[in-house]
This record gives sequence, C-alpha cells and structure tokens, in this order.
Amino acid sequence: MPETVSQEKCKIVVDAMGGDFAPLNCILGAIDAQNTLTSSEIYLVGKKDEILSILQENHLHFPEERIIPAAEVIEMGDSPTNAIKTKKDSSIVVGCNQVRNKFAHAFVSAGNTGAIMAASTFIIGRIPGVSRPTMGTFMPNVKGVTTIYDVGASVDSKPSHLVEYAIMGSIFVKEIYGISNPSIGLLSVGEEDSKGNEVTLAAFQELKKMNLNFRGNVEGRDIFKGTVNVVVCDGFVGNIVLKLAESIPRLLKHLLGEQAKKSLFDMLAIGLSKGALKRALTSTDYQEYGGTPLLGVNGISIIGHGSSSPKAIKNMVIRAYEMYEKNIVEKIGVSIKEFVSVK
Amino acid sequence: MPETVSQEKCKIVVDAMGGDFAPLNCILGAIDAQNTLTSSEIYLVGKKDEILSILQENHLHFPEERIIPAAEVIEMGDSPTNAIKTKKDSSIVVGCNQVRNKFAHAFVSAGNTGAIMAASTFIIGRIPGVSRPTMGTFMPNVKGVTTIYDVGASVDSKPSHLVEYAIMGSIFVKEIYGISNPSIGLLSVGEEDSKGNEVTLAAFQELKKMNLNFRGNVEGRDIFKGTVNVVVCDGFVGNIVLKLAESIPRLLKHLLGEQAKKSLFDMLAIGLSKGALKRALTSTDYQEYGGTPLLGVNGISIIGHGSSSPKAIKNMVIRAYEMYEKNIVEKIGVSIKEFVSVK
Repeated sequence: MPETVSQEKCKIVVDAMGGDFAPLNCILGAIDAQNTLTSSEIYLVGKKDEILSILQENHLHFPEERIIPAAEVIEMGDSPTNAIKTKKDSSIVVGCNQVRNKFAHAFVSAGNTGAIMAASTFIIGRIPGVSRPTMGTFMPNVKGVTTIYDVGASVDSKPSHLVEYAIMGSIFVKEIYGISNPSIGLLSVGEEDSKGNEVTLAAFQELKKMNLNFRGNVEGRDIFKGTVNVVVCDGFVGNIVLKLAESIPRLLKHLLGEQAKKSLFDMLAIGLSKGALKRALTSTDYQEYGGTPLLGVNGISIIGHGSSSPKAIKNMVIRAYEMYEKNIVEKIGVSIKEFVSVK
Repeated sequence: MPETVSQEKCKIVVDAMGGDFAPLNCILGAIDAQNTLTSSEIYLVGKKDEILSILQENHLHFPEERIIPAAEVIEMGDSPTNAIKTKKDSSIVVGCNQVRNKFAHAFVSAGNTGAIMAASTFIIGRIPGVSRPTMGTFMPNVKGVTTIYDVGASVDSKPSHLVEYAIMGSIFVKEIYGISNPSIGLLSVGEEDSKGNEVTLAAFQELKKMNLNFRGNVEGRDIFKGTVNVVVCDGFVGNIVLKLAESIPRLLKHLLGEQAKKSLFDMLAIGLSKGALKRALTSTDYQEYGGTPLLGVNGISIIGHGSSSPKAIKNMVIRAYEMYEKNIVEKIGVSIKEFVSVK
C-alpha cells in the first residue's frame, strides 16, 4: 500500500462495489474524474479481479496499483451497523480505513447509505465537538438551490443538534456555492417565532444567539421558494421531504398522462413538450449535485444515490476534491469548537 | 333564532366573513350549495348589514331569516386562542355556538384556520375519548387520492394520538370515499419496522394491535405513489408535507420557464402545453376536495383555504352534508370508545 498522505496531492478512494450499477458505473466515473482532476490521485476499492476483468472487457485503462483490494461487499439490504462489524474486508470498511489512516483524504460511495454513514462515523470518526454528523440534500428553487440539513443521518435531534447542522451546512454552502453569508431558516409549521414543536422552539432560541445569518422559521413552501439558502430540520422530517420531492416527476408524468386522455389537443401538446418537461425536471435530479457529503466526519465522505450514473460518480469525486481544496473539514472543526465553548 | 335541530333536515352554517374574498365568495358558495342541497338548510353567519347589501348589489337572493348576525370578524392575522376569547360576537365563535347548542349540525369556514380549530375544539368540544382532533389533507397519487392525518391540528403528538388519527382518518376515508377497508401507513424514514423516531416506533407497535388495515411504515415517496389510502403522521411533519406539495406548481412553472429560455422548440412546445399542464395540475388543487374537516370534534366543522373560491365554499358545504348523512361523528365516537377501552 502506498505511503502516507502528501499535502500536495488529493487522494480520493472510490467504492467500486457501491450502487446498483457497480462496478461498471463506478469505474467509468472514477476514470472520468481522474481525467478531469489530473493533479489528484483517484483510487478504486473493491474486488480486484472483478475490476480488472471489467477494465479489460471494456478496453478501459486504470492503473492497477491504484486498485485497493477488498474481498467483501456490503449489500444494499444489509443492516448497516451489523455489516460494518462483520464485513471488515468490505469496500466500504476498507475505503473508510484509508481515510482514517490518513492514506486518503476522501471516500466516495454509492453503496448502502446507512453503512457508509455508520462506517464514516465510527471508522473515520467525528470532528471533535460534533455530536452528530449530518447529511444534506440540494433542491432546486425559483432562485437557485436550497440545501437542507439533516435529511436522514439522525432522527430525534435535540435543539443543539439542529444548531450543529446549521453551522456545518452554512460552512458547506459558503465554501462550495460561494455564498458569503448563507441565510438559514428553521423548518417549522409557521413563520412566527411562536410556531413549532418543542425541539424547534428551543432550537430557535439557540440559533438566535449564534453568529449565523439566522432568518427564523420557514415553512414547507419556502423550500421551493428559495426563501433561505440553508433549511435546518430533524433528519426524520428532512428525509420525508427529500423522498417526497424525489417522487414529484413520477406524479407529474401520471397527471399529464391522465390529462392527455381527456383531450386530443392536450395529448398532442403534451407529446410535443415531453422533451422540454424532461429537461426542465432534470434540474431536480440531485445526481447532478454530486452526491452529498456526510458533514461532521473527520475526513471527507461523499454518499451517492444507489442508481448513480458514471456522471454522478464523477461529480461525487469532484465534490470530494472541492471539499479538500476548501478545507471544509478543518473549517467545521474551528466553528464547532467555538459553538462548544459558548454552550 | 330558529328552534332546535330536527333530525330530518341538515342545517349547515357558513361563515360569511371567512377567507380572503369574504363575504362575496362565501355568499355565492352558500347560495350555490343551497340550490344543490335542496333538502338542507344553509345559513350564513356574519355582519348582517354587509351581507344584505352585497346580496342587493349583486342581485342575489338568500333568505334574510337564514342570516345569523355576528358583529365581529376574526382576522387572518389574529392569535387564535386570544381571538376566540375576546371576539365573542365573531362569525367563527357564533357559528361554532350554533353547533354546540345543537341548532346546527355543521359549521363551514374559510377563515383563520387556527381560530376555527380552537373554536371547534373548545366551543363545540371533543368527542368523548378523543385526546386531539385532527385535520387531514387530500393529495393526488398515481392511483387516486392519498389522505394524510394530521397536517397541523397538533404537534408533538404522542404514539396514542397517532393511533387516534389513524382511527378517525380511516372512518372518514371509508365513509366519504367508499373504500371498504382503507389501508393505513405510518409515515417514517424507511419501510422496515425498525425504522423511525421514538414516537413512530412506539405508535407502530400500538397500530399493529388495532383492528385496522395497518400496512406498516411508508416513506415520503409513498404519498404520491398511493401505497396506502391513509398516511398517519404528527401534525408538524404533515404540515410541512402539505405546504411543500402546495408549492410544486410554482416550482414547475419556474423550471419550465427556464427551459423555454434555452430552446426555441421547447419554448413553443411549453407554450402549447400550458393549458394541459394547468389542467393536469388542477387535480392537485385541494380546493376541489371541499376543505378539510376537523375530525374528533363533537359536531361537523369544515375548514377551507383562505383563498377559497365560491366553488370551494360550495364543495365544503357538500362535504359537511356528506359527513352528516354518513353519521361520521357518531361512528368516530364508537370506534374511539373501543380504542379507549383496550388502552
């Protein structure tokens, strides 16, 4: 195995076995990313023989010495915490170990989300002061993009956890989207300060005291409206919002299909505009956003959708590189330390 | 004031002062409803002089003896609990008193939602055994309609409250939509029994024991997929889901507009299909569903959107009549009694 991390070169390990179309899509994405990020070193982790034979079959080139062997695979249906304990030689566990051991800066995977979260949290470890890592998502709004933290890394968040999500999400949006002072909204059931549940009412008071651009409560409609840059919520709520939003194109297709049945003109018009509709809705395709990092982990860990395309894998690698370049892990460490000291 | 309730005639009181387009839309909706429900007696409650002058100005006919005077109006921005205490002669308080006093069977309003909920709960009162009344919503899915309880009547629900929502929602869907044994799903972050937060995990166990068609956990995507007839959740989550869903047409309009800028063909196609899109999305317009009843109240109380059209008001009155006809309040009482006895 190569020597320890050099400060000059960013090393990113891609899980070759993660996702519904692994290893092919992961290999294609990694090769494409390497061609783009010429100054970085991209690695693949997984079943070496299988990777080599796919490379050969498809006349692809990827340096053999950059393949980190891992004999096991954590399947999509495996129980996350159990799998990371029993499958020590899985691509996810071996990949996270590369970051823990400071061999690599980042791990990128489209595999079992729960297992990547668990392995990242327990193997790579948390940034000192972070109670709970958080996973965000990016949704289109009428002005640009709304980011939401948390969308499923943890449920039953306490008020102080929501503050941590706000701090981490704010740093990510500032550094990656170049928004100097991201506005933050607390997802609730009304705009008024007095609206909310027990946890959000307490979080509201804590957020007000922080050195953040906190704009108070926002509602469900503010997500697509783009009222704030960062929406903060418990992972239970965020996960439901995420999955509901992902299912909009399917509902729309159905509703248009029903409408087409009612009128010949509408049928023709809908037929003509099918391409436009598809292209318009592609901007809601979060694979374009390059996966989502698990923030709060003491290293870079990017989680992708199971159905990731080669392009999605490539975008995840690029996102990992951006996080490395912008020192996001270190910046989160500094801000969380400040928060802990004032708590 | 007229004599007490007759078992034969359904009496429905419409808030003439409720909503952004009151009193005109309320008056028009009430007249239209009366023309449809010829065997019922529709009443208007509100500022009598104002109602009479609008009737005259617009050459409309509504019997003067069916106007119940109320000199005050609870405004949209008024604090609900405070308003129902201080504005005793408001249309909402006077309207709810008609149901409490058994003069009328139902109260229908497009006014301040919080005030209608508070007045219904405290003036009309709860059905014995009901801890928390619940407000639902109806969303289109690829098979028909998904109903969701609760969407904002209460937050920080306990597991037993979620069971109550399931019981009440199930009865409503069975009676109103004629679905003999409505399937029920618990909104959570994964399909597996082990997924959820503290409250849903406990509610899952309670729901399993009930004599309901409980199908386990459902996710955000299942709402539009139509996996179950009734989705049960805490009002905090349900309210966010509702408001997010309501904002979809606006996002879509924006995304299509952006797409039209990119391609002349797409611009033309989108232009041609504008009508079809609008018609397809109208099926997501919940005003068509005739407002939403506050279930668990010891009488019929229908809450409508502030921007209700005359048609929406009419549909709300028809919904109130259907609830009367199907004895939904009584049926909820019987089922809740059974639940309380096994608790």
